[in-house]
Amino acid sequence: MNINGVTIEDTFAEAFEMKATRIIITAMDRRWVGHAAETMTGFATSVIGCGIEAGIEQYLEPEETPDGRPGASVLLFAISGKDLTKHLQNRIGQSVLTCPTTAVFSGLAGKPTAMGEGVRYFGDGYQISKLFGDRRFWRVPVMDGEFVCEATTGRIDAVGGGNFLVLGETAEQTLRALEGAIEAMGHLPGVIMPFPGGVVRSGSKVGSKYKGLLASTNQAYCPTLRGVADSKIGPEVGAVMEVVIDGMDPDAVSRATALGIQTVCAFGPENGILGITAGNFGGDLGQFQFPLHEVLA
Amino acid sequence: MNINGVTIEDTFAEAFEMKATRIIITAMDRRWVGHAAETMTGFATSVIGCGIEAGIEQYLEPEETPDGRPGASVLLFAISGKDLTKHLQNRIGQSVLTCPTTAVFSGLAGKPTAMGEGVRYFGDGYQISKLFGDRRFWRVPVMDGEFVCEATTGRIDAVGGGNFLVLGETAEQTLRALEGAIEAMGHLPGVIMPFPGGVVRSGSKVGSKYKGLLASTNQAYCPTLRGVADSKIGPEVGAVMEVVIDGMDPDAVSRATALGIQTVCAFGPENGILGITAGNFGGDLGQFQFPLHEVLA
Amino acid sequence: MNINGVTIEDTFAEAFEMKATRIIITAMDRRWVGHAAETMTGFATSVIGCGIEAGIEQYLEPEETPDGRPGASVLLFAISGKDLTKHLQNRIGQSVLTCPTTAVFSGLAGKPTAMGEGVRYFGDGYQISKLFGDRRFWRVPVMDGEFVCEATTGRIDAVGGGNFLVLGETAEQTLRALEGAIEAMGHLPGVIMPFPGGVVRSGSKVGSKYKGLLASTNQAYCPTLRGVADSKIGPEVGAVMEVVIDGMDPDAVSRATALGIQTVCAFGPENGILGITAGNFGGDLGQFQFPLHEVLA
Amino acid sequence: MNINGVTIEDTFAEAFEMKATRIIITAMDRRWVGHAAETMTGFATSVIGCGIEAGIEQYLEPEETPDGRPGASVLLFAISGKDLTKHLQNRIGQSVLTCPTTAVFSGLAGKPTAMGEGVRYFGDGYQISKLFGDRRFWRVPVMDGEFVCEATTGRIDAVGGGNFLVLGETAEQTLRALEGAIEAMGHLPGVIMPFPGGVVRSGSKVGSKYKGLLASTNQAYCPTLRGVADSKIGPEVGAVMEVVIDGMDPDAVSRATALGIQTVCAFGPENGILGITAGNFGGDLGQFQFPLHEVLA
Repeated sequence: MNINGVTIEDTFAEAFEMKATRIIITAMDRRWVGHAAETMTGFATSVIGCGIEAGIEQYLEPEETPDGRPGASVLLFAISGKDLTKHLQNRIGQSVLTCPTTAVFSGLAGKPTAMGEGVRYFGDGYQISKLFGDRRFWRVPVMDGEFVCEATTGRIDAVGGGNFLVLGETAEQTLRALEGAIEAMGHLPGVIMPFPGGVVRSGSKVGSKYKGLLASTNQAYCPTLRGVADSKIGPEVGAVMEVVIDGMDPDAVSRATALGIQTVCAFGPENGILGITAGNFGGDLGQFQFPLHEVLA
Repeated sequence: MNINGVTIEDTFAEAFEMKATRIIITAMDRRWVGHAAETMTGFATSVIGCGIEAGIEQYLEPEETPDGRPGASVLLFAISGKDLTKHLQNRIGQSVLTCPTTAVFSGLAGKPTAMGEGVRYFGDGYQISKLFGDRRFWRVPVMDGEFVCEATTGRIDAVGGGNFLVLGETAEQTLRALEGAIEAMGHLPGVIMPFPGGVVRSGSKVGSKYKGLLASTNQAYCPTLRGVADSKIGPEVGAVMEVVIDGMDPDAVSRATALGIQTVCAFGPENGILGITAGNFGGDLGQFQFPLHEVLA
Repeated sequence: MNINGVTIEDTFAEAFEMKATRIIITAMDRRWVGHAAETMTGFATSVIGCGIEAGIEQYLEPEETPDGRPGASVLLFAISGKDLTKHLQNRIGQSVLTCPTTAVFSGLAGKPTAMGEGVRYFGDGYQISKLFGDRRFWRVPVMDGEFVCEATTGRIDAVGGGNFLVLGETAEQTLRALEGAIEAMGHLPGVIMPFPGGVVRSGSKVGSKYKGLLASTNQAYCPTLRGVADSKIGPEVGAVMEVVIDGMDPDAVSRATALGIQTVCAFGPENGILGITAGNFGGDLGQFQFPLHEVLA
Repeated sequence: MNINGVTIEDTFAEAFEMKATRIIITAMDRRWVGHAAETMTGFATSVIGCGIEAGIEQYLEPEETPDGRPGASVLLFAISGKDLTKHLQNRIGQSVLTCPTTAVFSGLAGKPTAMGEGVRYFGDGYQISKLFGDRRFWRVPVMDGEFVCEATTGRIDAVGGGNFLVLGETAEQTLRALEGAIEAMGHLPGVIMPFPGGVVRSGSKVGSKYKGLLASTNQAYCPTLRGVADSKIGPEVGAVMEVVIDGMDPDAVSRATALGIQTVCAFGPENGILGITAGNFGGDLGQFQFPLHEVLA
């Protein structure tokens, strides 16, 4: 398969079931929404090292939020429901409760997961519970008034680790194409690309020669190791970059994969884009497979 | 004491000794420096919940960095040297090793603290050590070439928790003044303001009525609790905001405190700025005291 | 007079009567509001060379705009009502009519000034007029639907050329302080600072040794000419920067002047801020005078 | 022809010969480069209304600029060499000479065109000429030191008005795809997209029913006029957007057209992208033709 002169390898991305939620953060204006949402989703690239993977799904206009203020929807993914609850509450406590003028709401139906339930104790007994319809909110007194936090959010089974890899002539060319792709994919609902700028350059394999290390560099895709180790890339490839996609369901991951690959391929070989492939573990580890040729059909 | 019609309370900020380091992150261009530095310093508002407090000290021009590329200097603060080492290595592994085209260097002399020493194992034996003068670097093969990471950085005793509080008529007015102050303080070397947008609205006291909770809302500064609990703010105060300052030494904290307060006071009562105070625990807990009237003298 | 160790010269800023209007631009989202408003107010630093002085007064939340979409209020100043009408219509035609999803509304009562009245002819006869209450709108068919443009906006007598000058040790230190000041002043209603980044470094005097040139460099404030021409700055001054303020009325200019000077002075001599003065022509040319000591009282 | 389910009409874009130059603006840091370059290229969407079409080609790292400071390359297009010289000098005078810490250099060999030659008179006789090799520079004393401006820049024959049109289901979907395309095209050398955000929604035809109007709305592409006038768009098309491309040579325009179309098509019909076409005047007016099927081959 070939798009605009770029070869698409006949392989599949392997992804994993994760627990996910969506929350809505609102604030006085877009600037303070951004401060809270960016801080909360910082250092959230991988569940292994950060406990949680998180990102801003999109910024919201006032008419799209529960309290009619500017907002952002944030997606969070964890390995278990317990982990999700723990890290969600900690991150709200550190990055949203602290942030001037913010409030937090559930952005998803699903299995109830404690949110304000945990944060409310900061109120030291001065917090108040309010019921609107069947939704419960906690109002916690703080120095700028009250922090409103919905008691629970919903949790669903979702998909972590969707991905594709871009083989390019140089790092700069590959990133130029991926900057366009990440911008494009960022408009799709239900997905985040949790790594810095949406891109990973430290592709890994399972295991290591060092005891206790779960993952290590995937030498098959390292350009400097082409003569030293078994390599999967030709001499024309100077850089490989991966996009990792977490999505609320397989369709969302599939759509984002297709749009991302199409956008990268728009740059073509004349801008240094040589090939597309995907990362998998032979199909035995993950619950989901995304065959590139099907996704792009 | 009074600046531009704003009363400065005769009190002091109480701060704590912490362990700190400065690292330099470089990348292909300013955009990717930003992705790495912002991700790495995200969710780093408080050592209690995040393990580490971190922020971007400043962006650097190519001529200011070890490898002549655009960069950023990042400051990190932890409670102990052990914590600093652990969280530094984890954050580099999650947010910088992963980020396309980046490299990491020590930005500080001081007690040697492992940095690349830990990260290098990702190379699975393919990493190479290089000595330039008396500085050792690890070159770890990754998909876009090599990740260069200095083996160690330096660590010093520093100051965490410098602060001042702004008493304002409304949350909006108080934040408008603080946006100017944070912008101004951001130009000073040696300090970070680790909370979202540089401001905290969830001021806390030590302890809680709930067992096991180390801190809870400081009702004395909550406008909605004025009639309910002992209050330190008058009826004209609609919002209180705190700026927390971590600095490489007491002088840096002192200078940042003075500039921040002066900038906020520039807005004056006609823009809703009513008073300035500071947070302390009576002087018994912290190693440092910053008396406001001395700092502003 | 002295603020935080910075000398405030006992002089006045001289300013001029200009004709001004406020318009409201709205669009699908904040991004496209920004594209239109920034393009429209670009190259609008001085009436002499650009025909008009213009700037974004503030971004508006949906509930603050006539059509409930995100918006921006833009202020425009010209020498005469005729000039204002001409340049307003041309800039709407080039930068707003062309910009996807935008609409334009009057943001000011006052003497009616043609706006949509002129732009409507682009509709080639397909445009439609609508009356809501006593406000008339033109709906001009375009490729993304219709461009809605209010028929007239209001015009008032306003103030152009309010100003203050900052004497600093170095250009970098002076700009660092002014970046904070411009950020702060940007929150005030009714004013714009029309020069790039809000600051001018090419202060001018009236006239020139070259025939036909209306203005030329003001050698008295040029650090490199201290030994060559009559100078008003001492040897410790390495850079002088001016902030020019256009305002909807004298009070707005006065408030902005005070806030700007206070913010700059917050940086103090330890950050290279040495003195404040203002530009005037002896008081004979301009209709308005802003004595610094009164403005700051 | 069909890309990812999107029909590419078998037509051509018609473009015009224009005179163009490239200048390099540098400043103390990226922020002030941006202030100058954005102000200078504001309100420069069309030669008809603005006298000149201009845009930022790219930001430059210090090692890419003549004086080793951060910079930006700016492209400017005009109808004649005389117009180019006039508007270039005026815009430098209003937006760069005024902007703190900036300098301006030629970024192009070609027919010499006065630049600093005109601006130097602001120096009122205090300006100094310097020769480096065969390049002459003017040093004009200003309040922050000296404004360095190269005496001349080079001018070439270039291409204005390259274009393509996107037919989409809704304005929002069409813009989402175009945001990705403009981001992608922005990385290519030698082109600018001069309209706000790179997109035009007010497509025009030559002439009008009103005397003296040179252009008016192109009713054939207005969705609201489908039943009223001859239409070129089907009922499924809710919005049409145009991208206008000015380039330093036909190849640059061709490459940008291809990348832009490919990126938009990556979004596909499932994201509301229905068709691609181009604007022409039958081939009789412009010196250049860009047949879409050839450009995309």
